[in-house]
Amino acid sequence: MEYSLLPVEEMVARPLSVQTLIACLGMYDWSLAVKFLLHMLTFGSAIYSSGSERHLKYLPKIFNMDIFGCFAVTELSHGSNAKAIRTTAHYDPTTEEFIIHSPDFEAAKFWVGNMGKTATHAVVFAQLYTPGGQCHGLHSFVVQIRNPKTLLPMPGVMVGDIGKKLGLNGVDNGFAMFHKVRIPRQDLLNRTGDVTPEGTYVTPFKDDRQRFGASLGTLSFGRVAIVGMSIVNLKLALSIALRFSATRCQFGPSDGEEVPVLEYQTQQWRLLPYLAAVYALDHFSKSLYLDLAELQQGLMGTDQGARQAELGREIHALASAGKPLASWTAQRGIQECREACGGHGCLAVNRLGDLRNDNDPNCTFEGDNNILLQQTSSYLLSLLACHVQGGARFESPLRTVDFLQAYPDILGQRFTCPSVDSCLDSSVPLAAYEWLVCYLLRESYQKLNQEKRSGSNDFEARNNSQVYYCHPLALAFLELTVVRRFHEYTHQPRVPPPLRAVLGRLSALYALWSLSQHTALLYQGGYFCGEQAGKMIQNAILDLCSQLKDDAVALVDVIAPPDFVLDSPIGRADGELYKNLWTAVLLESRVLERPSWWSEFSVHKPRIGSLKSKL
Amino acid sequence: MEYSLLPVEEMVARPLSVQTLIACLGMYDWSLAVKFLLHMLTFGSAIYSSGSERHLKYLPKIFNMDIFGCFAVTELSHGSNAKAIRTTAHYDPTTEEFIIHSPDFEAAKFWVGNMGKTATHAVVFAQLYTPGGQCHGLHSFVVQIRNPKTLLPMPGVMVGDIGKKLGLNGVDNGFAMFHKVRIPRQDLLNRTGDVTPEGTYVTPFKDDRQRFGASLGTLSFGRVAIVGMSIVNLKLALSIALRFSATRCQFGPSDGEEVPVLEYQTQQWRLLPYLAAVYALDHFSKSLYLDLAELQQGLMGTDQGARQAELGREIHALASAGKPLASWTAQRGIQECREACGGHGCLAVNRLGDLRNDNDPNCTFEGDNNILLQQTSSYLLSLLACHVQGGARFESPLRTVDFLQAYPDILGQRFTCPSVDSCLDSSVPLAAYEWLVCYLLRESYQKLNQEKRSGSNDFEARNNSQVYYCHPLALAFLELTVVRRFHEYTHQPRVPPPLRAVLGRLSALYALWSLSQHTALLYQGGYFCGEQAGKMIQNAILDLCSQLKDDAVALVDVIAPPDFVLDSPIGRADGELYKNLWTAVLLESRVLERPSWWSEFSVHKPRIGSLKSKL
Repeated sequence: MEYSLLPVEEMVARPLSVQTLIACLGMYDWSLAVKFLLHMLTFGSAIYSSGSERHLKYLPKIFNMDIFGCFAVTELSHGSNAKAIRTTAHYDPTTEEFIIHSPDFEAAKFWVGNMGKTATHAVVFAQLYTPGGQCHGLHSFVVQIRNPKTLLPMPGVMVGDIGKKLGLNGVDNGFAMFHKVRIPRQDLLNRTGDVTPEGTYVTPFKDDRQRFGASLGTLSFGRVAIVGMSIVNLKLALSIALRFSATRCQFGPSDGEEVPVLEYQTQQWRLLPYLAAVYALDHFSKSLYLDLAELQQGLMGTDQGARQAELGREIHALASAGKPLASWTAQRGIQECREACGGHGCLAVNRLGDLRNDNDPNCTFEGDNNILLQQTSSYLLSLLACHVQGGARFESPLRTVDFLQAYPDILGQRFTCPSVDSCLDSSVPLAAYEWLVCYLLRESYQKLNQEKRSGSNDFEARNNSQVYYCHPLALAFLELTVVRRFHEYTHQPRVPPPLRAVLGRLSALYALWSLSQHTALLYQGGYFCGEQAGKMIQNAILDLCSQLKDDAVALVDVIAPPDFVLDSPIGRADGELYKNLWTAVLLESRVLERPSWWSEFSVHKPRIGSLKSKL
Repeated sequence: MEYSLLPVEEMVARPLSVQTLIACLGMYDWSLAVKFLLHMLTFGSAIYSSGSERHLKYLPKIFNMDIFGCFAVTELSHGSNAKAIRTTAHYDPTTEEFIIHSPDFEAAKFWVGNMGKTATHAVVFAQLYTPGGQCHGLHSFVVQIRNPKTLLPMPGVMVGDIGKKLGLNGVDNGFAMFHKVRIPRQDLLNRTGDVTPEGTYVTPFKDDRQRFGASLGTLSFGRVAIVGMSIVNLKLALSIALRFSATRCQFGPSDGEEVPVLEYQTQQWRLLPYLAAVYALDHFSKSLYLDLAELQQGLMGTDQGARQAELGREIHALASAGKPLASWTAQRGIQECREACGGHGCLAVNRLGDLRNDNDPNCTFEGDNNILLQQTSSYLLSLLACHVQGGARFESPLRTVDFLQAYPDILGQRFTCPSVDSCLDSSVPLAAYEWLVCYLLRESYQKLNQEKRSGSNDFEARNNSQVYYCHPLALAFLELTVVRRFHEYTHQPRVPPPLRAVLGRLSALYALWSLSQHTALLYQGGYFCGEQAGKMIQNAILDLCSQLKDDAVALVDVIAPPDFVLDSPIGRADGELYKNLWTAVLLESRVLERPSWWSEFSVHKPRIGSLKSKL
C-alpha cells in the first residue's frame, strides 16, 4: 500500500505489469499476493465488469483501500456446481431493497478469500427472486459485511474465519451466513440483469443459461492468473533444487572422490524436464495473459461481434485446461524438487514444503482441475460436431484449432523419424501431438456417440467419456498449444544465435518429455510402431538432459529472484550449500536449549506400566 | 509408557504385534510412533544386534526409558553415501578409550530423529582408527550425549534441534558435533569388528566391504517398517476421501437433483485403484514383515547357512523396492485424495495435509527411494549374470524370482485376452507382469553391457542404465511380487465365498491399474499389439471400479480407525459431512472475533503511496 507499486493507470496501460506484480509479490509471499489480487482484481473487476455506472463510486474506495473486498460464490455444500448455490436475494419493492438470506448453514458462503478477518464488502452470488416468487437465477450483489472503521460484522451477518489450511495461511478464508440482510436495490450488479424499482426483472439476454455464462465470465481472469502463479512456484522450487544438485556431492567413481548429484543421469532426468516446462509454460502464460487483455479491451469497447465471442470461447478453453496443466505440473515438479534435495528438502527453512503447500490450492480454486478440463474438451467436441454436421471450418481467432481442418490427413500420418538426432527438435513432437489430439478427438467423439446409442442420457454419456477420452484430449490439446507457441517463439529469426541452441533444446525437451507421457496412446492408435519409436524418444530426452545440464545453473539464474526473496539456504546463488544451511539452523531460536518440558521427560517422568491394570 | 502397550516379551513372541502397535500409534500421531520406533527398535535393535554380551546392560535401561536413544549415521554433507561419512573414532590404548570427533561442521551428525531435544544416548557411526593411523572403516559406538537427569549436553558434545520440517514435527530431529569426546573401549558395538585393549583391530570378516554390509543390516527393519507406515497413511486418506465422496453431492442429470460424487466414473477411477492398492500392499507389508521376522530369528539362532544368506539378500531386495513403491503410492494417493475432496480437502482440520506432510519423509529417510531401487535391480541383474555365465538356476527362499527360470519362454508370450470379461481376474495382469519383468531384465542387462562396451567404467555404466531400465525393472519386479502375493491370498480356497468376489476384484483392479502404468513398455516390447489390447485393460479397470463403488464405503470401514483416531470431520463414519465440518469450524478458537491487529487494518492503516517517492 505504502509503495503503491502499481497505480491503476499503469495497470490499464500495461496489462502484463499486473501479472508481473503478482509474480513478484508471490515470490516473496503468496498470501500477500493473493489478498491483493482478490481485493483489487477479483472483487474490483467483478464490480467494474458486472456492474454499471451506478457502481463506479466503489472504485476509488477500492483503489484507496477504504473498503476491502472479497468474492463470494462458493458455499459449504456447493462449489463446482455454482448454478446450484442456495443463498437468496428477494426483492422488496416497498423499500426498494434486496433481502440477502442464507436458508441454512449448508448455504453459508465458505472458503471465501479475505472474508475471514479483513473484508468489509463482498460480491455475493445469490438466486434473485422478484415479488410473486419467480426465481431469475444467479446474480451478484455488493453486500457490506463489516464496518470499515471497526472491522465488526454488520447486523444480520455472521462472518468468521474457516481456520487453518494446508497452505496459504496468510489468506483469511472465511464463511458468512446472512440473516435477512437488506441492501439497496442499486447494489445489484446489473450488467446481465436488473430489477426495476417496482420489481420487474429485465435482462438483455434471451435465456438464463446465456446470462449465467456471461455473469461468470469474470472467472477467466482468475484461471489465467493461476497459470502464472503455478509457474512462479515451479521456478522457485527448481531454483532451489538445481542449485542444490550442482553443489551437493555424493558418491563417485572411486573412494574419496565425489561428484555433484546433477552429474547423475537420474537427477538430470528428474529435474531438467521441469526446467524446460517452466520456460515453455512461462511463455504460454504470458501469451495467454495478453490474449485475455485483448479480449477484455474488446469487451469494454464496441467490438461485440462474432470474432469477439469466438475469442472468448477460445480463451475460456485455453484457460480451463491451462490452469490444470500448469498447477499439476507445478505440483509434481515441486514434489520432485523436494525429493531431489533428499532430507534437506524436508527442512522447512529451505521452503520446498511451503511452496508445495501454497501451490496446492491452485489445483482446486477457481474451478477444480478435473472439472475444468471438461470445458476444453467440450469446446473441441462442439467444433467437431459443427464440422461433421454442418461442414464448418476449424478456425479460431488465436488459430489454436486451425490444424484440425486437416484431421483426416493427420490421422493417416505415422512416426517416421530415422534417428535420435532428428528427434532433437520440437518439430518432431509437434507433429506427434497434432496426431494425438486428432486421435483423441475422434475417439472421444465416437465414445460419446456410442454411449448415447447404448441408451445413456447426455449427463451419463459425458460422465462416462472423461477417463481415457475427454480428459487426456483436453490436456493433450493444451500441451500441443504450449509446445507450438514455445516452438514458434524459440525458432523466430530474431532470437540471437547463441540463445537459439539452448532455447531450442528446452523447447524440444519439454515437448518430448510431455509427449512421452502419452507413449501408450501413440502405440495404441498406431502412430508409433515397433520398439525403436519409443526408444528413440527416450534417448532423445536423455540426450537433451545431458546437453542442458551444464547450462542448468545459468538457466536457473535467469528465473530465480534475489536470495532475499528466494529465502532458501540450500538455494542461495553463492552455492555455499552447507555454510548457508548450518548458519540458518544455528540462527533458529532456542536451537541449543533444553525444551521447556525437560523435567517431565527426565526427572518427573511417567512410570512404565503404571496404568496397565486400567486397560 | 504408562500403558506399557507392548511388553518386550510379547514383542519377541508375536512379531506382527510390533507392526500393529506402530500402525495404531501412527494412526493417532506419527511423531509419537516414530519417536517410539526410533528409541525401542532402531536404537535398541542396533545395540542388540550390532553389540555383544557386554552391551546387554543397556537393554533394561532402554525398555524402562532410563535412557533414550537415537541412531546417528547421516551427516550434514553425507546421507545416501554412508560409507563416506567423516566422524572419526581414534583408539587411545593409554586410557582404553575411543575419541569421537567431528572434523568440521560438514561432518556434524544431522537429521537424527530424537537427537534434537530428547535423546540421552546415540549409536554413532564413525570411521575407526587404530594407533598408527590405520582406518578400519565405519563402526558404531554408543555415545552418551546428554545427562538423563538434566537433559543438558555432555562435555564436548554440541547438540541441538535442526528446526521445523515440512512434516513429522513432533519428532525432534537433531544435529551433533563431537569435540574429542572420550568413551570407554567397551562402547564400540563389536559384532563385526573389535579393538583389543592394546589397540589391535580384529574382525571375523575377510574384507571391509563384507563387514560394512553386515554392519548396516539393521537398516532393513526400518525399510520394512516404512512400507507399513506408508500404507497406514493411505488407509487414513482413503477413509476420508471415500466417505466424503459418498456423501458429497454435486451436479446431477437434471436441475435440482444432485448425485454423490462417487457416482462419477472419474471420481471412482481416481480413488478406487488406491483402495485396491491399500489392500494389496497391506497384505504385502504384513507378509514381508513375517519374512523379516524369520530372517531375524535365524540370525539370532545357529542357522547361518547359505539359505539364511540368500533369504537376507532377497528380503533386502524386496524391502529396497517395497519402501519406494509403498511410499510413492501413498504420496500420490494422498494427493489424489486431497484433490478429490476439493476445497474441503485443503482445510487443515480434515487432516489430509498433515497426512501428506507426515508421509513425505517416507520417500527419503532410511534410504532415498531412487537410490534404494538400485539395490533391487542389482539383485536381479546379479542373478541373471550368474545364470548366463554359470548356469545357476533362478531360485530364492521366498520364490519371488523362481519364475525367471522360464524367461526365454515368457519373453515369447503375447497378450491374448479375448474379451474384457476375461481380464477381470488378476491372473491376466500377473502373466503380463512376468513378461514385463523378463523384458526389463533383459533390456537392463543389455544396456549395462552396451555401456561397458562403449567404454564406460562400472560406475558410469550403472548410472547410465537407471532411467528407463533398472529403475522401472525394480518397481515392476516389486509390483509383480505384490500382485502375486495378493492374488494367491485372495484365491485361497479358505477365503469365504461372499468375500472372494470383492477381494478378487480388488486384486484384479490393483494389478491392472498398476500394470496400465507400463502400457507403453508392453507395446514397445511387443507384448501388446493393436488398439484392442490397451483398450481392454482400460475397460477392465473402469468395469472393476464400477463393480466396486457400492462396496467402497464398507471396504473403507474395514480399514478405518475409530473417528476419534481418524480425526477428520469430513471423514467421520456417520456421513454427516456438513454438520461435522460446520461444528468443527465453529469450535476453533476466536473464529468470530476480530484479529488483534484490526485497528492497523482499519483505523491506523498505512497511507497509499506514502513511500512511493523513496522507491
